[in-house]
Amino acid sequence: MVSKNQIKLISSLHQKKQRFINQLFFAEGVKVIQELLQSNFELDHLYTTQNDFDTVLSSKRTLINDQELKKISALTTPNTCLAVFRMPAENKINDSGLIVALDDIRDPGNLGTILRLCDWFGIKQIICSKETVDIYNPKVVQATMGSITRVNVNYVDLKTFLTQTKLPVFGTFMDGENIYQSHLPKEGIIIMGNEANGISEEIEKTVTSRLTIPRFGELQKTESLNVATATAIILSEFKRNS
Amino acid sequence: MVSKNQIKLISSLHQKKQRFINQLFFAEGVKVIQELLQSNFELDHLYTTQNDFDTVLSSKRTLINDQELKKISALTTPNTCLAVFRMPAENKINDSGLIVALDDIRDPGNLGTILRLCDWFGIKQIICSKETVDIYNPKVVQATMGSITRVNVNYVDLKTFLTQTKLPVFGTFMDGENIYQSHLPKEGIIIMGNEANGISEEIEKTVTSRLTIPRFGELQKTESLNVATATAIILSEFKRNS
Repeated sequence: MVSKNQIKLISSLHQKKQRFINQLFFAEGVKVIQELLQSNFELDHLYTTQNDFDTVLSSKRTLINDQELKKISALTTPNTCLAVFRMPAENKINDSGLIVALDDIRDPGNLGTILRLCDWFGIKQIICSKETVDIYNPKVVQATMGSITRVNVNYVDLKTFLTQTKLPVFGTFMDGENIYQSHLPKEGIIIMGNEANGISEEIEKTVTSRLTIPRFGELQKTESLNVATATAIILSEFKRNS
Repeated sequence: MVSKNQIKLISSLHQKKQRFINQLFFAEGVKVIQELLQSNFELDHLYTTQNDFDTVLSSKRTLINDQELKKISALTTPNTCLAVFRMPAENKINDSGLIVALDDIRDPGNLGTILRLCDWFGIKQIICSKETVDIYNPKVVQATMGSITRVNVNYVDLKTFLTQTKLPVFGTFMDGENIYQSHLPKEGIIIMGNEANGISEEIEKTVTSRLTIPRFGELQKTESLNVATATAIILSEFKRNS
């Protein structure tokens, strides 16, 4: 059974502020929880409606019913389990290889999908502007499908970071060089912009290589690609010859 | 003001069955509605909280307030307008060039994003299995961002269609040929599989070219890509040399 205080704590973790005060976040679903358990993330407590996860100490595991799960879940259709984890300390930025920098990504699904893409393409370091959605947002954790355990994410003043880096800085714009015909190095920072506004003006100033993903539609009316699908195309292009 | 009967009708259009009975669907937001108005879609009625859309006949336009919009909207945060359109007759399948075939895509956001990608890459024809989510689902219409007006979508018995086609049929699998090293023709059918199960066994039998998107992550633990991001990578690869 889940206590009133536990319900109160978990409900509070739906909010970023409370996650930071408590230094806790939660994940839902067997697959994501298993990936977190197998990684360096420290379990605070697991709540499950099944007699599963028997490798978890019984003092850290509570059997609950579907109604109780529904009370603490962030999902419209709750899974069978929810686990609270400690937020790990932020690692140092690994300023080498390919890095993805996010300039105010607001949609949790987009951020989760981008982390999953980075993991697929072997990109270890993601730099987020302070306005980018929190990676410990329950919807982000869900959308990463476990990739959150394998990538390093830092929140920084993006302008300062990009001004100080010695790596080339790539951004995509309507007037950039055709990405399919560009020389794409093995080291560099790839900036992806906000869903509505793209790369902001002050971040654009730090870009050293302007790229574009060409459109093929006859009417050339399609205004833009979703940021996660644009990231997929760009990362594929950077990695295909490596 | 919106009448009780209008509210009842629009609410019913949230359901696929009622959309087909009434041969109507609705779209929300200035951008998407404008694209639909500029295309061949026939407007049934427009509801707006602003004094906008003055090119629309006043007999087809109703000024409503925010509360009324909230009642008929499918969005958590309603926009400023909602418009009901007639469902156009299904066009004949254009069985040439590159075609995307969808094997039971269930998530409306994924279908909408895939239509937007097809539009970007100049792919005119999309073939959906009968179990694929309806393109007139409000969430699909929203996610297409207007691309719905520029692509041709047909719902068919996918197995029969793929068995009868003379075009090469492409599918991605773990054991396929590296897509970055494959010869990709200008004509063919690219199958994208269901979110949870991938390409179904009976559809797999119709595949003539098995491809794979290589993973680059060191640990090779990332299980899969989201279907919309995988579509982005595959379409980019098919079109990059054309």
